[in-house]
Amino acid sequence: MGNLLRGAAVIGQSGGPTAVINQSLAGYVEEATRHSGIITRVLGMLHGVQGMLEEKLVDLAAESRDTLEGVARTPAAALGSVRKKPSAAECHRLVELFRRHDIRYFFYIGGNDSAETAQLVESLTRESGHEMRCFHVPKTIDNDLRVTDHCPGYGSAARFVAHAFQGDDRDNRSLPGVKINVVMGRHAGWLAAAGTLGRRSEEDGPHLVYLPERVFEPAAFLADVAEVNRRLGRCLVAVSEGIHDAADTPFLQVYAERTGSALAGQKDSHGNVQLSGTGALGDALASLVTAELAIRRVRSDTFGYLQRSFPADVSPVDAREAREVGRAAVRAAVSGEHASGSIAIRRVAGPAYGAETFVTPLDTVARVTRSMPDEYLAGANGVAPAFRDYALPLAGGIEPMVDLQRVPATAAVKA
Amino acid sequence: MGNLLRGAAVIGQSGGPTAVINQSLAGYVEEATRHSGIITRVLGMLHGVQGMLEEKLVDLAAESRDTLEGVARTPAAALGSVRKKPSAAECHRLVELFRRHDIRYFFYIGGNDSAETAQLVESLTRESGHEMRCFHVPKTIDNDLRVTDHCPGYGSAARFVAHAFQGDDRDNRSLPGVKINVVMGRHAGWLAAAGTLGRRSEEDGPHLVYLPERVFEPAAFLADVAEVNRRLGRCLVAVSEGIHDAADTPFLQVYAERTGSALAGQKDSHGNVQLSGTGALGDALASLVTAELAIRRVRSDTFGYLQRSFPADVSPVDAREAREVGRAAVRAAVSGEHASGSIAIRRVAGPAYGAETFVTPLDTVARVTRSMPDEYLAGANGVAPAFRDYALPLAGGIEPMVDLQRVPATAAVKA
Repeated sequence: MGNLLRGAAVIGQSGGPTAVINQSLAGYVEEATRHSGIITRVLGMLHGVQGMLEEKLVDLAAESRDTLEGVARTPAAALGSVRKKPSAAECHRLVELFRRHDIRYFFYIGGNDSAETAQLVESLTRESGHEMRCFHVPKTIDNDLRVTDHCPGYGSAARFVAHAFQGDDRDNRSLPGVKINVVMGRHAGWLAAAGTLGRRSEEDGPHLVYLPERVFEPAAFLADVAEVNRRLGRCLVAVSEGIHDAADTPFLQVYAERTGSALAGQKDSHGNVQLSGTGALGDALASLVTAELAIRRVRSDTFGYLQRSFPADVSPVDAREAREVGRAAVRAAVSGEHASGSIAIRRVAGPAYGAETFVTPLDTVARVTRSMPDEYLAGANGVAPAFRDYALPLAGGIEPMVDLQRVPATAAVKA
Repeated sequence: MGNLLRGAAVIGQSGGPTAVINQSLAGYVEEATRHSGIITRVLGMLHGVQGMLEEKLVDLAAESRDTLEGVARTPAAALGSVRKKPSAAECHRLVELFRRHDIRYFFYIGGNDSAETAQLVESLTRESGHEMRCFHVPKTIDNDLRVTDHCPGYGSAARFVAHAFQGDDRDNRSLPGVKINVVMGRHAGWLAAAGTLGRRSEEDGPHLVYLPERVFEPAAFLADVAEVNRRLGRCLVAVSEGIHDAADTPFLQVYAERTGSALAGQKDSHGNVQLSGTGALGDALASLVTAELAIRRVRSDTFGYLQRSFPADVSPVDAREAREVGRAAVRAAVSGEHASGSIAIRRVAGPAYGAETFVTPLDTVARVTRSMPDEYLAGANGVAPAFRDYALPLAGGIEPMVDLQRVPATAAVKA
């Protein structure tokens, strides 16, 4: 360790996009070009390891400063993304290509699957005797990586979701009814919980929050909705796409089987029921409320891909940290203090929010994900104040909505 | 006309919310309180004429300046909204209440239905001999009012939709496939067309735009998608919720009947197929593409209520104009130059965008709506450059996305 390793660096982007994933890319280029005596070429692979396998490599040092800054504020993977775990044959080819291109630094921006790919590359190259430093750069709107306090990409998605709920809550107050909003998050409720960040009181929605950390009971859901609607004359609901029954079967699948709905074309490539890129879950929940409760106006919206790629509502804190994890990965790799690792974030104690990066071993982050801890949850349908303290700074703060005082008019005074 | 009419003023908000509808409310209060010698009380009715009928009146002069400014940047009707046409009995009661509360000024913020209500109130009070001035204050994300160049509320919704498509286009480029986004607009395509405002080239999506101004032919749609997907390896589609066949039947209804889909709970209170607050149309189009074309990744999103109530991406031009139409209505009413009317906007000639308000008779705006003119359309699936010139200033300008140059890496130079 600590030795100087000279050669090319390559970076890839993997998995679902975020609004700030290119900040990490810009941070990588920024830092890597500062070490030109060590990093001989600053490369990028198109569509992750798929592009590496096809030798689709681009020279990121050739990009102008202006372009990189523009790309940094442009959502979704600028190099293209991929969802792919290389096969054994592909692994051999990867090592061969790293040798051929004299690549000594491998950076992979993504979630826990991407950390696993980085780990795979690390063990492959170590076994083959081609010395390489392999780093995972965290990114996910789901906020479900282990070790790190939070994930770059989450703050901006949380900000979008919080704002969307603020506006929709005013909309629902204006034209009352039951409104169900489906938020991304197959295994963890971090993003749906962020729907509460703009609330000021019990009267503000979302009034009910259903997350994958709890078993979803349709009967309890209906009773909850009926109760809130009786009390407030309306009800705004936040639902994670990953809500499931006690056997961990997605609610949508249970519902489809029970009602005999076709859900045509709504299976993903693994045969699982498709949860993103369709309005089926929201529509199923709305149908359930309409069928079981005597409520006239029931609507649903599915926030969909907007929450991970909206360019005009990025959290400044999130953008800054996403840039920083890209830089930190290069610094850690060049320093030689670690042969591999994942960049993580921890909070710095103090009155105001502050954070710093550190390196955690790849195997602490790869594969397994992290759900919301119990102290962030309240009962079966709510979020605790501790969650708000945790998430609000990441979203960059949410300005409160303002209502009229609605002072009743005094009796008419005839002129 | 021109005579001084002393008495209370009342304002109501009606129809679907917008992000800037409360700017018009704030403009009304601002201007009305400046005429305290004429306007004796500055009132608001809760939930439009419904609140008037129930004498739910609030004193808007009692609101602080800070509250009003906060309310102005808060989306959706702060007074509450309603979709209601008063019955004959209710009309009599309205006149009685106007007399009792000495109300001489009636303002109604809304779309063409609200203009009709203002017209009804005007004719009722004229016939009954209770002199009143009745003004319609325009608001609609649909941009479908006659006479006016554009409607307050549209610019902000257009801005949101343009940004959403910019981000989703990067998302789709990053993980290629067919993506269909459904945008509000039952009768007119103004808002879906705004999805194109962030495009820089033919390569940028949306690549196909389907609007209610044209007959929607499923076979042509499938051929279009296949062609774009062949050419670019992906396809981003913008669809107005109001797409329909040659007999003006909504596509979703045609599709449901053809496929035998239940569309359970998806009829509105008039028995029409429900288009907003459900993902059914997007899912139907995605199912069609999946079934008919050999494309692996097909997704849909329905922008839903987010596009009309998102608080964090308001067009500054739109906010300013929404404030101004509220002020202008009061000025016009107090001046006595018009006994009634609707506030409209026209452009002022010059190198930069500029606009001014004027008064148009209520009957020129009530009931009928305005579709996009032919010169804003291109073929059956596109938008003409003239539309961009028209809409871009209203959205407050859209900053372009930035892509990497993607300079191919030169051959490896072994160290």
